[in-house]
Amino acid sequence: MAHTKCSIVCQDLQMNGITAYHPFDGLSELKMAVAGFMSQVMEGRVLFDPSQMNLTSGVSPAIEMLVFCLADLGNAFLVPSPYSPDLDRDIKWRTGVEIIPVPCRSSDNFSLSTASLNRAYNQAKKRGLKVQGVIVSNPSNPVGNLLTRETLYNLLDFATEKNIHVIANETLVGPIDDKNQEFVSMAEIINSEEYDRKRVHIVYGLSKDISLPGFKVGVVYSFNQTVLQASKKLMRFSSVSSLSQRLLVSMFNDSRFVREFIKINRERVERMSDLFVGGLKELGIKCMKSSRGSYCWADMSGFIRPYSEKGELELWEKLLNVAKINATPGSCCHCIEPGWFRFCFASLTEKQVPLVMERIREVL
Amino acid sequence: MAHTKCSIVCQDLQMNGITAYHPFDGLSELKMAVAGFMSQVMEGRVLFDPSQMNLTSGVSPAIEMLVFCLADLGNAFLVPSPYSPDLDRDIKWRTGVEIIPVPCRSSDNFSLSTASLNRAYNQAKKRGLKVQGVIVSNPSNPVGNLLTRETLYNLLDFATEKNIHVIANETLVGPIDDKNQEFVSMAEIINSEEYDRKRVHIVYGLSKDISLPGFKVGVVYSFNQTVLQASKKLMRFSSVSSLSQRLLVSMFNDSRFVREFIKINRERVERMSDLFVGGLKELGIKCMKSSRGSYCWADMSGFIRPYSEKGELELWEKLLNVAKINATPGSCCHCIEPGWFRFCFASLTEKQVPLVMERIREVL
Repeated sequence: MAHTKCSIVCQDLQMNGITAYHPFDGLSELKMAVAGFMSQVMEGRVLFDPSQMNLTSGVSPAIEMLVFCLADLGNAFLVPSPYSPDLDRDIKWRTGVEIIPVPCRSSDNFSLSTASLNRAYNQAKKRGLKVQGVIVSNPSNPVGNLLTRETLYNLLDFATEKNIHVIANETLVGPIDDKNQEFVSMAEIINSEEYDRKRVHIVYGLSKDISLPGFKVGVVYSFNQTVLQASKKLMRFSSVSSLSQRLLVSMFNDSRFVREFIKINRERVERMSDLFVGGLKELGIKCMKSSRGSYCWADMSGFIRPYSEKGELELWEKLLNVAKINATPGSCCHCIEPGWFRFCFASLTEKQVPLVMERIREVL
Repeated sequence: MAHTKCSIVCQDLQMNGITAYHPFDGLSELKMAVAGFMSQVMEGRVLFDPSQMNLTSGVSPAIEMLVFCLADLGNAFLVPSPYSPDLDRDIKWRTGVEIIPVPCRSSDNFSLSTASLNRAYNQAKKRGLKVQGVIVSNPSNPVGNLLTRETLYNLLDFATEKNIHVIANETLVGPIDDKNQEFVSMAEIINSEEYDRKRVHIVYGLSKDISLPGFKVGVVYSFNQTVLQASKKLMRFSSVSSLSQRLLVSMFNDSRFVREFIKINRERVERMSDLFVGGLKELGIKCMKSSRGSYCWADMSGFIRPYSEKGELELWEKLLNVAKINATPGSCCHCIEPGWFRFCFASLTEKQVPLVMERIREVL
């Protein structure tokens, strides 16, 4: 952060040009810098094109804007569950669009199958709802697992068959030291395969890969010119402060800093993930295998009585009020199996982990 | 601006606390600072309360959010015309709410009358539309005139009679050296009179009084707790970067700088207004009497042939393509009399005014 602070005062950043009006959809310099950063995180396996990008004030408006562009009031999107409670707010609140959950199960490692997509789609049709697309997170939030290459192909095949859209909310995990796991961006598949690009849209935010949630910068990345044009118009409601934009241009252009940041940040997040998941394991709580981000998805079904949403919420209350730990109960994420919890450790330090574990132990 | 630049690097502003998540509706320190600034601009005649305030990324989302809070799809708002073309986008695009213009005429100095409000209201009723409120700008944009105290009373009487809301988009003009004009904030009236406060909402932005449009900071100021709570939830879609917020706190807390800024800025804007309006007068173009902001409303009806929207748009094209001057034609503002134009000189220097006048002269 010392470096970022330095970026503010260095001569790259002048008040001149910051105070005035600027394009709602982001400065072209920042689009170039963000595209460069995204490509850098992916270590060149995907090249992102700044001309396919609109910048907005966070991931929530980016998702909502795409929903406004792709659906009418009363239409629906399929969303694999468990899913982040944020999506209920982002997708449904103002657009009047509905979410049809596509239930995933622990017995399948919460992976997404075409069979369940088809079931949810038919269920929506029966209710008279027009399905406009599927919205996925990769890695899945709250589960933390990665969508396999095969899952992405199946998803695109399904979208092609039904003639609907795909919105992928991606955290760019980059290459992983694990032969059994890889992060594949939808952009990589669309650039290399014969799918209709116009149905694919990616949402990205600077909160995770560069740890700047406070800056409120989200990206709408689309292969569809009409959607890009329409969302650009909607950016008037959610544009990014020019001050933040200038600082980010200055920061992203320092490639050495960015390279080191990505490396150190990834190492730290992975170390915290191992530490936290390891701590839970010692308490007898197993977590789903994940891409080692800043949260984990823990099976606490053995600790709830009764085995139901009621038992789950009772444990949540104990965790909150006795242990002072605010975990997200699975029922908030529309998980169909009771007893799962998301623990987020983005703002914990390594030293605090033993204390957290001790508190959880006391509640159990 | 030298001072503002200084604010970035002074010790008040630390990266620490800027990068992390923060409340969507704005930092409480900034709410206090903005309320203090607004009260300062009004020279203490109105005291704004930070607890009645949500901060968002500009005036457009502030207006749209209030419309989302107060109206359902298919409802309508009355808006005195001519009105800024921005309102068509802000109010109608995503909410599905309609605008019923309330035509004001040059023969009445484009002032708003209760008779015309009633006519527009009844017209909406005949079309089966439920009217949820009236949206006014003070000073009026594009006309630039101030809503008199009497007009504000009439407006509140009308809203009370019909049981609807009032949204006032205010630029806080502050005291004026002109006995025939005064700027009265809706907040002043509501604080001193026996109206139902819950129907009154003010929208404010930092683009004019402090010349920071690039920072994208808008204010929803409401006397209605339910609307404050609801709009706070919607702030997730349009929140302000923490970096801009911290800088603004630092800047607003320097009361000497702010005092001088208000004084110098007001003097400069008034001087430019006098210069520009005077220049047009020499060309035989009269402007409406205004509060001397950064735009004027000019009667060019004598220069259009035919006297119709067609003639107006032909003159607009000539101004744009020959003189390279982009004025806003009245028809874009739903003005019912052809030949009126809004000239905005916010980014002109005094030296450029003679050149602009020369170019307009050549077109005429």
